[in-house]
Amino acid sequence: MKLVFLGTGGSYPTPHRNVPCTALKYEGEVLLFDCGEGSQRQLMRSSLSFMQVSKIFITHFHGDHFLGIPGLVQSMNMNDREDRLDIYGPEGTVSLLKDLLSKGYFGAGFPIHLTELKPQARLDLDDYQISTFQTDHDVPSFGYSFKERDKKGRFDRKKALELGVPEGPLFSRIHDGEPVEVDGKIIHPEQIVGPPRRGKKIVYTGDTRPSQNTIEASNRANVLIHDSTLDSSMSDRAMERGHSSTVMAADLARKVGVERLFLTHISPRYTDGKELEDEAREVFEESTVPDDLFEIEL
Amino acid sequence: MKLVFLGTGGSYPTPHRNVPCTALKYEGEVLLFDCGEGSQRQLMRSSLSFMQVSKIFITHFHGDHFLGIPGLVQSMNMNDREDRLDIYGPEGTVSLLKDLLSKGYFGAGFPIHLTELKPQARLDLDDYQISTFQTDHDVPSFGYSFKERDKKGRFDRKKALELGVPEGPLFSRIHDGEPVEVDGKIIHPEQIVGPPRRGKKIVYTGDTRPSQNTIEASNRANVLIHDSTLDSSMSDRAMERGHSSTVMAADLARKVGVERLFLTHISPRYTDGKELEDEAREVFEESTVPDDLFEIEL
Repeated sequence: MKLVFLGTGGSYPTPHRNVPCTALKYEGEVLLFDCGEGSQRQLMRSSLSFMQVSKIFITHFHGDHFLGIPGLVQSMNMNDREDRLDIYGPEGTVSLLKDLLSKGYFGAGFPIHLTELKPQARLDLDDYQISTFQTDHDVPSFGYSFKERDKKGRFDRKKALELGVPEGPLFSRIHDGEPVEVDGKIIHPEQIVGPPRRGKKIVYTGDTRPSQNTIEASNRANVLIHDSTLDSSMSDRAMERGHSSTVMAADLARKVGVERLFLTHISPRYTDGKELEDEAREVFEESTVPDDLFEIEL
Repeated sequence: MKLVFLGTGGSYPTPHRNVPCTALKYEGEVLLFDCGEGSQRQLMRSSLSFMQVSKIFITHFHGDHFLGIPGLVQSMNMNDREDRLDIYGPEGTVSLLKDLLSKGYFGAGFPIHLTELKPQARLDLDDYQISTFQTDHDVPSFGYSFKERDKKGRFDRKKALELGVPEGPLFSRIHDGEPVEVDGKIIHPEQIVGPPRRGKKIVYTGDTRPSQNTIEASNRANVLIHDSTLDSSMSDRAMERGHSSTVMAADLARKVGVERLFLTHISPRYTDGKELEDEAREVFEESTVPDDLFEIEL
């Protein structure tokens, strides 16, 4: 599982940062959270392929969060994509994107499914769940939580053989949590299988003031990716505009106790993220202001 | 007057080339010919300011030629633009762009005038004319010709004084082509003013097969910017897809006798333009395959 920060800027691009797009590579697929203009080119510059993108999750309809979709779709089309693409977003997603994707001459030759979600929706997908939570911005907007399914505990093969369980189908029955009888003796899964391993949890806020909903959604998160548009001296201005400052995001992360915080949606006024990162770290040590194309294995 | 090649690729971007956008800086304004996704960021990387863009001319509605407009408009808006923006394009421009620019939450706070042009239209603007000409692509598409107004000939101040013309209002009357009487003697403008100086002419084709219309439109052009999607070994394929190859474009330029040829809309399959340029130069010496952000004073 790998996070790739494709666009860490906010509002409009600069030569240093593109507009919002965060990719999560999970197994064979790539999920995008927001997809601002130029995201396809950022994908091309990264270790990911734009053709692997299977799902796009849009937080809200400010241009910097969704205007990369039609160009990405045209490029997928020109590269003979056949796989379905799913696009999720808040109310209005279906009509807006249907319309946007029918402009000009580049209708997709592959299926695109558009889904409108409510805040507090939960999608049960193959190996993970996606939940939405209402955020506090100046237009309808929500964040997403990605939660990998919990995994079975580790199977102790050596212990199983010691207890006389023969290699074969009984192994997987025990691993699946079923007690089995061997030579008249009941073997309980707990004797051989470790505790379930918690799936990773990643929370992406999109644009927001610090909010109680984000605090709740981030409970036990491994990674929180939070709006951090302005520096600490401009917290009031951030609030006025529906955003957060570095220290506000760091303070929230500290309260929740997430493992790591990534600060994004950096205003075009900053070229270097170092000072922003420093002030966030004074509040919450595990804070990072990633540059575009920064990636991390989880 | 300065040409800046903001996006020299075609169809979809690569890390090396962005999708089509060519800027012409003329006096205080910047004209864009096509405006693919990411053009605003290319402007930010160039010597031009995206806020100076006064007019955008779209050749056709394949995504790589116009999808940069809404993001550019949002950014202008966020930077408190007040000046009018004019956008011109072929049939369908008004409804398509009106619709595109009303998506999401970023209505422009400055006036945007949308104008639908016919092929062979002519716009008389302040110091230049813009004409359109039908090109030969697989969807309705046309090219643009920019023609600077011819300028008055040079005024020979020394000669004027020698002929007894006193410095003052008579100078400008003569410069404007009016014969004047000085000490009972008629002074004709031709005695003092050189021949009118031809305004510069720049022709931009957008996507096209080699075409008779382009030949006619390029008559006496200083610069021709022509589709050159593929190399000479793939001329047939270029034709099939409504494009030109390097040698086709060079051959046309040689026939017309333009001063300089710039080859653009380079397919994503090429990373380096050197070989393409070499084969074009064998046919027409003054051929250049510009990289993105290449600029030239005219």
